[in-house]
Amino acid sequence: MVDRIFQRFSEKSGLPPGTIVHLGEKQVSPPEFRVVQYSEHVFEERKAAVVDDLPDLPISDTITWVHLKGVHEPERIEQLGRKYDIHALVLEDIANTGHRPKFDDTDESIFLVLKTLTYDEESDEVIPKHLCILFTTHMVFTFQESGPDAFTGVEDRLRTGKGRIRRKGADYLTYALVDATVDNYFVILEKIGERIEQLEDDITSNTTSDSMSEIHALRREMTVIRKSIWPLREVLGRLEKDESPLIHDNTRKYFRDIYDHIIQAIDIVETFRDMLASLHDIYLSGISNRMNEIMKLLTVIATIFIPLTFIAGVYGMNFKYMPELEWQWGYFAVLAIMLLLGIALGVYFKRNKMI
Amino acid sequence: MVDRIFQRFSEKSGLPPGTIVHLGEKQVSPPEFRVVQYSEHVFEERKAAVVDDLPDLPISDTITWVHLKGVHEPERIEQLGRKYDIHALVLEDIANTGHRPKFDDTDESIFLVLKTLTYDEESDEVIPKHLCILFTTHMVFTFQESGPDAFTGVEDRLRTGKGRIRRKGADYLTYALVDATVDNYFVILEKIGERIEQLEDDITSNTTSDSMSEIHALRREMTVIRKSIWPLREVLGRLEKDESPLIHDNTRKYFRDIYDHIIQAIDIVETFRDMLASLHDIYLSGISNRMNEIMKLLTVIATIFIPLTFIAGVYGMNFKYMPELEWQWGYFAVLAIMLLLGIALGVYFKRNKMI
Amino acid sequence: MVDRIFQRFSEKSGLPPGTIVHLGEKQVSPPEFRVVQYSEHVFEERKAAVVDDLPDLPISDTITWVHLKGVHEPERIEQLGRKYDIHALVLEDIANTGHRPKFDDTDESIFLVLKTLTYDEESDEVIPKHLCILFTTHMVFTFQESGPDAFTGVEDRLRTGKGRIRRKGADYLTYALVDATVDNYFVILEKIGERIEQLEDDITSNTTSDSMSEIHALRREMTVIRKSIWPLREVLGRLEKDESPLIHDNTRKYFRDIYDHIIQAIDIVETFRDMLASLHDIYLSGISNRMNEIMKLLTVIATIFIPLTFIAGVYGMNFKYMPELEWQWGYFAVLAIMLLLGIALGVYFKRNKMI
Amino acid sequence: MVDRIFQRFSEKSGLPPGTIVHLGEKQVSPPEFRVVQYSEHVFEERKAAVVDDLPDLPISDTITWVHLKGVHEPERIEQLGRKYDIHALVLEDIANTGHRPKFDDTDESIFLVLKTLTYDEESDEVIPKHLCILFTTHMVFTFQESGPDAFTGVEDRLRTGKGRIRRKGADYLTYALVDATVDNYFVILEKIGERIEQLEDDITSNTTSDSMSEIHALRREMTVIRKSIWPLREVLGRLEKDESPLIHDNTRKYFRDIYDHIIQAIDIVETFRDMLASLHDIYLSGISNRMNEIMKLLTVIATIFIPLTFIAGVYGMNFKYMPELEWQWGYFAVLAIMLLLGIALGVYFKRNKMI
Amino acid sequence: MVDRIFQRFSEKSGLPPGTIVHLGEKQVSPPEFRVVQYSEHVFEERKAAVVDDLPDLPISDTITWVHLKGVHEPERIEQLGRKYDIHALVLEDIANTGHRPKFDDTDESIFLVLKTLTYDEESDEVIPKHLCILFTTHMVFTFQESGPDAFTGVEDRLRTGKGRIRRKGADYLTYALVDATVDNYFVILEKIGERIEQLEDDITSNTTSDSMSEIHALRREMTVIRKSIWPLREVLGRLEKDESPLIHDNTRKYFRDIYDHIIQAIDIVETFRDMLASLHDIYLSGISNRMNEIMKLLTVIATIFIPLTFIAGVYGMNFKYMPELEWQWGYFAVLAIMLLLGIALGVYFKRNKMI
Repeated sequence: MVDRIFQRFSEKSGLPPGTIVHLGEKQVSPPEFRVVQYSEHVFEERKAAVVDDLPDLPISDTITWVHLKGVHEPERIEQLGRKYDIHALVLEDIANTGHRPKFDDTDESIFLVLKTLTYDEESDEVIPKHLCILFTTHMVFTFQESGPDAFTGVEDRLRTGKGRIRRKGADYLTYALVDATVDNYFVILEKIGERIEQLEDDITSNTTSDSMSEIHALRREMTVIRKSIWPLREVLGRLEKDESPLIHDNTRKYFRDIYDHIIQAIDIVETFRDMLASLHDIYLSGISNRMNEIMKLLTVIATIFIPLTFIAGVYGMNFKYMPELEWQWGYFAVLAIMLLLGIALGVYFKRNKMI
Repeated sequence: MVDRIFQRFSEKSGLPPGTIVHLGEKQVSPPEFRVVQYSEHVFEERKAAVVDDLPDLPISDTITWVHLKGVHEPERIEQLGRKYDIHALVLEDIANTGHRPKFDDTDESIFLVLKTLTYDEESDEVIPKHLCILFTTHMVFTFQESGPDAFTGVEDRLRTGKGRIRRKGADYLTYALVDATVDNYFVILEKIGERIEQLEDDITSNTTSDSMSEIHALRREMTVIRKSIWPLREVLGRLEKDESPLIHDNTRKYFRDIYDHIIQAIDIVETFRDMLASLHDIYLSGISNRMNEIMKLLTVIATIFIPLTFIAGVYGMNFKYMPELEWQWGYFAVLAIMLLLGIALGVYFKRNKMI
Repeated sequence: MVDRIFQRFSEKSGLPPGTIVHLGEKQVSPPEFRVVQYSEHVFEERKAAVVDDLPDLPISDTITWVHLKGVHEPERIEQLGRKYDIHALVLEDIANTGHRPKFDDTDESIFLVLKTLTYDEESDEVIPKHLCILFTTHMVFTFQESGPDAFTGVEDRLRTGKGRIRRKGADYLTYALVDATVDNYFVILEKIGERIEQLEDDITSNTTSDSMSEIHALRREMTVIRKSIWPLREVLGRLEKDESPLIHDNTRKYFRDIYDHIIQAIDIVETFRDMLASLHDIYLSGISNRMNEIMKLLTVIATIFIPLTFIAGVYGMNFKYMPELEWQWGYFAVLAIMLLLGIALGVYFKRNKMI
Repeated sequence: MVDRIFQRFSEKSGLPPGTIVHLGEKQVSPPEFRVVQYSEHVFEERKAAVVDDLPDLPISDTITWVHLKGVHEPERIEQLGRKYDIHALVLEDIANTGHRPKFDDTDESIFLVLKTLTYDEESDEVIPKHLCILFTTHMVFTFQESGPDAFTGVEDRLRTGKGRIRRKGADYLTYALVDATVDNYFVILEKIGERIEQLEDDITSNTTSDSMSEIHALRREMTVIRKSIWPLREVLGRLEKDESPLIHDNTRKYFRDIYDHIIQAIDIVETFRDMLASLHDIYLSGISNRMNEIMKLLTVIATIFIPLTFIAGVYGMNFKYMPELEWQWGYFAVLAIMLLLGIALGVYFKRNKMI
Repeated sequence: MVDRIFQRFSEKSGLPPGTIVHLGEKQVSPPEFRVVQYSEHVFEERKAAVVDDLPDLPISDTITWVHLKGVHEPERIEQLGRKYDIHALVLEDIANTGHRPKFDDTDESIFLVLKTLTYDEESDEVIPKHLCILFTTHMVFTFQESGPDAFTGVEDRLRTGKGRIRRKGADYLTYALVDATVDNYFVILEKIGERIEQLEDDITSNTTSDSMSEIHALRREMTVIRKSIWPLREVLGRLEKDESPLIHDNTRKYFRDIYDHIIQAIDIVETFRDMLASLHDIYLSGISNRMNEIMKLLTVIATIFIPLTFIAGVYGMNFKYMPELEWQWGYFAVLAIMLLLGIALGVYFKRNKMI
């Protein structure tokens, strides 16, 4: 849990600022670049292993999209920074996979930090991955921590030229990338929603202590999701209102649309949290009802038999002179009295709704 | 529950933005258009099955109101969009029945997303339905997800020409439509209010575990209602303050009036939530009081009889030499001692308010 | 409770906006007008049964104050509206007794909705009553739902000409009326304060389940009061800052003063709520302490006697060969052992602070 | 408690606004004036019983500080108001000892309402006292409700001429007075801090029900302190930012300093509240642990002896034909079985960590 | 705990403002100055015991950094203040080790109060230490309360000339110092994170009461950390937005970077608090589950044996005429009945999931 929430920072402490250090889980596979260049009528795509293979600054009527999967090799990020003249602090943020979503408008470029969410079916955990987008007039850089490629949909659309995406600029590509990321949140939320629904059914039918750990697991997931989604409200709000010439006026409307989606996602997150709190209440009251039933049973049985046992005890005494013991029907009289007393107590409990 | 709160989004993930996909419950009946055209002295009303039957852009002194019931056929919405030149993102929001209330002022039109609430008498559930209103100078479009017609009252007033509605513009019609929607919230809230009152009576008279599930059911309804009403505060606040020429200055005052009503509705929602929380407390303290009564009874009976049974046990021992057993009045003395001890304990408990 | 918080709205749903419908408790006595006209040296006062008896627009150096007690006859309010040219939406708000406090500045008049609070000694309930004030340069209209006259103090001061009230304008009269209303809040709060103090004494001396219902009753009263007072903060804040020429600059300072009083009242309300929450805690911990005491007693008695009874049981067994039974002092030895064991257990419990 | 939080307002209800009524505890000793007049080289100090003995408006190079101890004689305050031309509303606030801290800048003077806190060692209660400061260019008025003199330190500094206080104006004197008041808060908070520390020790060592009442007492004190300190944040914030010419630019920095101190005091208050909440939790979990221990003991003893007693009961039955009873070693065999069973159960409980 | 949160203020109360009093823990070792002077090509470093040994105002192309470790000798701070003309209020804040983080921009200098956090491995406590930074164009003063040197990393970088630090001004040095402090927070948070993780493992495996005190200890640490970090949000926000010429435009971006880090740290703090609250819930539900298990066991054993013991008691009665006692197989029949009854009850409990 702690791992998913923050990274090991101690490695970095004491280094001069602007030092690019990979903060996050170590990865084995080497980072790899993918370069997409397109204009309305052109589409070209290739992979690159080293920074030198990347295109120089692009000619003005094509958009170049450089995607780096894996941010765990600082020197590679540094080379990239030097090649395209990216500020050291931006590079630092790219390598710091624990960085919180942010928006930064340096006049020549706009820099976004987001989180993609993936759902690990095995451990039933939501895993946030670091994602950075940096764009200028004709270039878009994306940096993805690891995991399955987040942008295959966008790439396909670029390749086939469907929709207006090839006719628009770098800002629209950025929009499409952010939109794909945000759309994915709803898929994750839907999965969580199904688990909550399942849990609701479980708890109303019978309460096992598994429900408790599922409630806590879901709450933990909501904490992870919330940490990834909440800050986006501000990030996208600022993106939409930003007056940078890098964002065209008619793209702005699209960013407004994503903003609406984020608000919707936050709404769902908050509702889920409410529902979990409510399920927790129901669970607790179920547990306490069951316990109360058990205690009532104990009370009733004990309370009925304690006086009866006492009577039996009395006639078990060995006094020489106990007239009742001599009576012919003494035994049966006592049995009858016990029976009547038992029934009387039973009726009393019934009347007072204790059984 | 989850169904009422958010829609299945996964179908949409990966599609290019601006793709119109119906998100929401599938419907069987085909969508149907209703067209109302009126000016101060004219009123005309007809149904239309396809988009081609809809009027072209209206002549300037009549108001045209197009109402579409059923948003589950994307192609129909798309045709409409093409005919009246509506932005793709607006069409997307119309088809997305899970969209949260919003206000959008594109210079040529104003677009509102609202929720109508209907009360399902069978399941005692409040069901929010998607409602969109789009208006320009002479046209008003309304899109209703499904369910009973939300606007019969407004239509009647248009037909009979009662009040000032026929003399005013598209903004006033919009106002009348929103007002009808908001008025309906109070009807729903009144129903919930009656249930809360009933519950209050039930809980104070006797606490059954049904009360608990009713509390939870009502809380769930409040969550649903709250999600529909809360965002309207902002929507109507922005509508009132919007400087669009589409809204006449003397209509603005009417929107202010609806804003007041929404605040009143939110107030009631919050008060109901407080009352439910308070009823939950009363319920819990009722349960715990009952349990305490039972435990006290157990304690008292056990505590009185345990020493008595012990005494009986002592004189049930089979020692050869037990002088008391030989005494003439031993038995009666012991009985008397037991009685006195029992009474003494009873008095002690009474004094200490344990009974 | 629900009645005191919101009105039956369903009657109104579906009617055209601006329709004046009395929303609230039905009243029997007919509404009655009272007209007061005064200037620095003149004071005239009379009752009027119908709108036609009311003065026409007043001559410029007298202030005319029209007070209507009872807002349950829509036609009367409508006639008044027509006579003095009051906007339909204002009239609607006047008749809607459930309307929340509000401030409205139409350029020619200022309209306030407030709540007067009355304390019903019989049911120990605080009952909010609807109160509207509308003023222009020379006229003040007040509309009171029902109940005892809220403004006798102000009327007396006008009649006797005490203080500066006769020398000032309609805004100052309005101030005096609002001030009287707000002053009355403190009287109500004082009553509640006394009940809280009484409750505090009760709870610390002994905890009965009556305390619980008193806590809940007081919380309910606080909810009612809060709903009436809270919105006034905004209403008076806007009144003070309003730049309408209807409010003279040196009256503004007086409105600031009422604003301070409202903040003070809200402070007291919040403190009372805190105190009730705290009393609830004390009550609960009192209950649980008592229960714990009882459980401890059970434990101690049961735990001491259970082993003793077991010993008695052992020597009650009927084995042929039980050597102890034959011993001369066997019985007394066992009694002594039991006594010692009982004392030992008692000391153990004492040491461990269980008794 | 209620007394310390709000005053009896009913006496005032219905009186014309601006009527000076003493709201608060009645005092016996008559109010007394103290007049201090000083410039850089002059210092004069005297007492005055009546308003006529007070100096007229001062000559321009001396500062005159008039201190009134006791605000329970309205006529005296009224005379003062008339003599120095103070607004009626200000006088009303001075006499209302329940008034909440406020800041008021009428152009000719600045008016502050504060609270001094005194710690009543006997009842261990913090008692807030009303304190008003009104200053113009050359005059400072202070009004203290009662209790020990709050400003002896400042007076001493004026008398001895230590520091820069005699060289500065009325605004600096005001600063020194407010600073003395705020410094005193820390003394009170320190006392509370010591009690919290003591309580912490008590609770961790052993939990008595006294701890509970101490927690509640401390919470009550925190409520009282909070009500006095919180509003000062705004008061001092506005004082610092106020653009009145009455405050010199280099005094502003000093007010900023007090503002920092108030924030620090609020911080401590909030931390104390957190600590008390946390101690409450620890206390409750301590109580419940103890109770659990007791219940476990009951369970263990009862559960071990109940089967044993049953066995004894079986061999206490009087059946004619019970073969075991005839056996030579029957008794010892049963004793051995009982012992073994008891040990077995004990081991079982130990293993399951129930003992 | 209280000690770590606020200092003893009473010593100061009553003293004139601007008096420099050391508020905080007493220290034994004498304060010591360290002076570093550098420009791009020069680096000089020395210690100084007294203020007179410090350099006079520096020549314009070197940066002078004066570091004072130990603020417990007021006269030394006063001498420093006199030498470099530092405002008395700033000196007061330097000596007050309990001062809350603040930002102050007097036109000639910028003054920051921060907290360094150190982790005491022995007591597992986070100890906040007071740290002040004051800088002008060419001078930086740092004042550290005590503890290990917080700035060795920065000093090393200055000495070796690595990075751009020697080429930049006093503002960049300040940035490097603040950055080192903030970086250190993450080291502390990581330590806390490890303890939370450990605790999580402990609680899910088995619940001991140690977990409870660890939860409370961690909460206390979070309170301490939060108090140190939270106010930095505002401090750094203002630092970044400050328009002082002392901060170069390209240093501003670096301060923005620290601001991001602080937000990230606050995020982690809040998440840790959430996690602790959640662990508390899990702990409580674990405890209550265990207790419930124990109570159930008691109930089951008691409920099974109570009727059996009653039967044994019945046949232990000494009535003359009890036919069953005479029966040949009476004893075995009763034993069989008891066995059957016991099994029946056991099955009943099993079915109802009570065992």
